[in-house]
Amino acid sequence: MINTLVAEIRKKNAPIVVGLDPMLSYVPEKLQSKAFAAYGETLEGAAEAIWQFNKAIVDAVYDLIPAVKPQIAMYEQFGIPGLTAYERTVSYCQSKGLVVIGDIKRGDIGSTSEAYAAGHLGRVQVGANTFSGFHEDFATVNPYLGSDGVKPFLKVCEKEKKGIFVLVKTSNPSSGEFQDRLVDGRPLYELVGEKVAEWGGTLMGEDYSYVGAVVGATYPEQGRALRKIMPKTFILVPGYGAQGGKGTDLVDFFCEDRLGAIVNSSRGIICAYRNEAYARFGEDNFADASRAAVQDMLADINGALDAAGK
Amino acid sequence: MINTLVAEIRKKNAPIVVGLDPMLSYVPEKLQSKAFAAYGETLEGAAEAIWQFNKAIVDAVYDLIPAVKPQIAMYEQFGIPGLTAYERTVSYCQSKGLVVIGDIKRGDIGSTSEAYAAGHLGRVQVGANTFSGFHEDFATVNPYLGSDGVKPFLKVCEKEKKGIFVLVKTSNPSSGEFQDRLVDGRPLYELVGEKVAEWGGTLMGEDYSYVGAVVGATYPEQGRALRKIMPKTFILVPGYGAQGGKGTDLVDFFCEDRLGAIVNSSRGIICAYRNEAYARFGEDNFADASRAAVQDMLADINGALDAAGK
Repeated sequence: MINTLVAEIRKKNAPIVVGLDPMLSYVPEKLQSKAFAAYGETLEGAAEAIWQFNKAIVDAVYDLIPAVKPQIAMYEQFGIPGLTAYERTVSYCQSKGLVVIGDIKRGDIGSTSEAYAAGHLGRVQVGANTFSGFHEDFATVNPYLGSDGVKPFLKVCEKEKKGIFVLVKTSNPSSGEFQDRLVDGRPLYELVGEKVAEWGGTLMGEDYSYVGAVVGATYPEQGRALRKIMPKTFILVPGYGAQGGKGTDLVDFFCEDRLGAIVNSSRGIICAYRNEAYARFGEDNFADASRAAVQDMLADINGALDAAGK
Repeated sequence: MINTLVAEIRKKNAPIVVGLDPMLSYVPEKLQSKAFAAYGETLEGAAEAIWQFNKAIVDAVYDLIPAVKPQIAMYEQFGIPGLTAYERTVSYCQSKGLVVIGDIKRGDIGSTSEAYAAGHLGRVQVGANTFSGFHEDFATVNPYLGSDGVKPFLKVCEKEKKGIFVLVKTSNPSSGEFQDRLVDGRPLYELVGEKVAEWGGTLMGEDYSYVGAVVGATYPEQGRALRKIMPKTFILVPGYGAQGGKGTDLVDFFCEDRLGAIVNSSRGIICAYRNEAYARFGEDNFADASRAAVQDMLADINGALDAAGK
């Protein structure tokens, strides 16, 4: 799947991913009303509203981008109907040729990570049949439990040709609280980065490993250091746009081949219609606003990469 | 909810929790066949089998125990039907007067943790209505993202009088890989423990905080140190039984009031009928075997606490 992701990024000249993290409050009034008219002001109604919102945005941008990253929490908060909308979103995006990175941040002891890996990237056996519950192409993984929490994911990735992105240095303000603590004079996130490189070494695609890393756009200096520690690791970069990251901050997350990183924007794209810069589209044309925001994001990032000679 | 948990532990003289982590392979053949006859060899069939398995065990042990800890991964692997069985298990256990600790190990950046907290411990607003998706009483939380990943849970806990258990030192063999790394001469898990005590200081129940910690039974020495660092923190102790922990290893996880810890056993209880010690019950009476295993676990732990003069 890492080879597919790289090929799609190259084909579309778009090292970006759109975060499908819909809050109900992001969904335009008309779409909400329509969903509530059909399903009531219920979890089913909320799920329908975010699904229709997602679908409109995906339809408007899928030809420009290689991948989407739905954040499962935004669906899980609406219980079973919400998770049904998540699965539907994953399926729909895959039907449009998009690579789906499930932002699930799971991670547990070995036998439990096995179950997460089966449910999200692999298959479960039921009698004579097998099923893929959520069937994302990649999943994000939390490393706090160490190797035996990650290895079950590696096993499934190898078998299914899928991938993971392990949290190394997250984009949030307090990520340094534990991740930056010095261990033998080096920040913890560097040790995690070394482990990611090690885990990934056994699972190589053509140019990059099946095992990627998450490094926040809000920490460009750390991104530079981690790029060197993990030379064959694809980096998923959240924190662009709404969280503060800009294209020029991000060039060092990329390798000399202009690859090696994929930058996520969620709110900045899916909620573009609320942004003054795209107000001209109006609420009814929210998906067109998202398309314009994707084009601007591409211009920003590709422009920065051009300027850096990558 | 921490006050309720403490009251129930006292009433039942049972500082234990049963982990409802059903693998499909744990479910006796007859129950599986019945579920498959009704729903086919499908995700729905698997979900029905694990739900019936859970129900029988809960019916057999609920009067002996204060709480259960369903591990959501074991349900999530079966997709939407699996998660429906999870929610049904949570509801059923609550209807039997049990405190439910959702072992979800979620944790993300602030706005995303807010969604997880709403979906598992709080409520979401949909139009004029509010809903509680999974409505556990406690949830486990991963601290790798630092304070702003945990604080949204604290906010919901305060409002809803619920609680969390933050991963501090997990029970798995490789937990030391990052958790034991020395920061200024002290292991990382101690720094996490200090943060847990700090977060919990603002959210106190009668004797213990709403904010608990997870410390594995497999690391008794670390448990002893953490007990001192987090004097008002309830400790959830996984790793008893199948993972290797024994009652005598665990006395120092408890405070002088004989409280302050709750020990989990999953496989050792729900799969007791497969254990030689309970083979006399036979597969048909798997739930009775679970009851006997709960009684033996109670005798082991209470005996160890008696011997330690607690």
